[in-house]
Amino acid sequence: MKYELYYWPEIQGRGEYVRLALEEAGAAYVDVARGPRGTAAMMKMMDAHGGTPPFAPPFLKAGKLVIGQTANILLYLGSRHGLAPKSEAGKLWVHQLQLTIADFVLEIHDTHHPLGPSLYYEDARREAKKRSDEFWKERVPKYLGYFEQLADDNGGAYVTGRRLTYVDLSLFQIVDGLRYAFPRRMKAFESGIPGLVDLRNRVAERPNIKTYLASERRIAFNEQGIFRRYKELDG
Amino acid sequence: MKYELYYWPEIQGRGEYVRLALEEAGAAYVDVARGPRGTAAMMKMMDAHGGTPPFAPPFLKAGKLVIGQTANILLYLGSRHGLAPKSEAGKLWVHQLQLTIADFVLEIHDTHHPLGPSLYYEDARREAKKRSDEFWKERVPKYLGYFEQLADDNGGAYVTGRRLTYVDLSLFQIVDGLRYAFPRRMKAFESGIPGLVDLRNRVAERPNIKTYLASERRIAFNEQGIFRRYKELDG
Repeated sequence: MKYELYYWPEIQGRGEYVRLALEEAGAAYVDVARGPRGTAAMMKMMDAHGGTPPFAPPFLKAGKLVIGQTANILLYLGSRHGLAPKSEAGKLWVHQLQLTIADFVLEIHDTHHPLGPSLYYEDARREAKKRSDEFWKERVPKYLGYFEQLADDNGGAYVTGRRLTYVDLSLFQIVDGLRYAFPRRMKAFESGIPGLVDLRNRVAERPNIKTYLASERRIAFNEQGIFRRYKELDG
Repeated sequence: MKYELYYWPEIQGRGEYVRLALEEAGAAYVDVARGPRGTAAMMKMMDAHGGTPPFAPPFLKAGKLVIGQTANILLYLGSRHGLAPKSEAGKLWVHQLQLTIADFVLEIHDTHHPLGPSLYYEDARREAKKRSDEFWKERVPKYLGYFEQLADDNGGAYVTGRRLTYVDLSLFQIVDGLRYAFPRRMKAFESGIPGLVDLRNRVAERPNIKTYLASERRIAFNEQGIFRRYKELDG
């Protein structure tokens, strides 16, 4: 079965967490909005009445199922493609970690959209600077400290132990994204998270991920996505 | 088995979404931080090394499992207690809706904490006012319009059709919370969401919920929680 991924074509964004999982799994998929049908097909599915219309992208069509919410898509894909444990307890734990990452992603986004997603960054620069300062002072240490500790305590190559899960793929994305968006601040911070940096490298070297990163499907970070390089926010 | 719920004792907060589900289900549970062990027991579990230490409350101890993230706890409880469909597709759909509610809850919280959770409201009043204006102009119509449409399209008593799920309990909480936090704005807005208001009433009348709401376990909304009444933000 070929999956259909629906997400904004011009950014990595939340869709990227799904793309990384699909690529690692070697799963056949179409990135619909990047193809001839464009975003129109995506908007049409969100406007559907009856059934399970998603609130927002990303969403995945898997046969008859239409699954929305990034972490929910990964929950679905995880067990099917060996990217999560098979036990219920294991699945819940990995999902919990992904939801924590999702909360962090929202806070990353809010460094440049502190007054909400409907205003432009340019209309809230002052607030964005204040938010970014707080973010680096309090929130990055809290979130990445938590994952660094897990990596340390679990003693394996991956954050939950010896086997890769979709959470590790997402943490790769977090490290690369923060390096892109806040190069100075991240450079200073990284020395405190050697386990996560190591993990990032290990994920990047995995054959399917390596191939993906070198392909056209992996577009560059840019200033429309979640990770945006605004120099004035970089301390 | 008696569940153990761990959450900040003095607020409804995110814990309330779990309490409503436990109460509706008639499940035996202890609200640990409200008892003699207090929050110390909770902090100890978060500081654990190895195992599955939660990043933040709420979390639920269910036998040997420790489950964190509000929507993840509800995912776990939902199928066990008849608060979610049994089919995989049904579970994923309900979970997706709950994750959408969780995103909305975060935005509700950010109306009074636009610069991040570590500053006090008093230090970001100006920004909070701007954020609240945008929130009511763009975000409330988008989120509640989505759920109102679902209720309408599904034609049943509940948002996913004929049977109650934990999503309906959470929507009850959203309506009551917004009424508390933004009485003027919500009063003006409500006429546009008759289905959700109806749903709220139907949930409130369910025997276990009715009993819970009249009990001591349902504490009042206050200005430490997610829904806070700050007059200056109420238009």
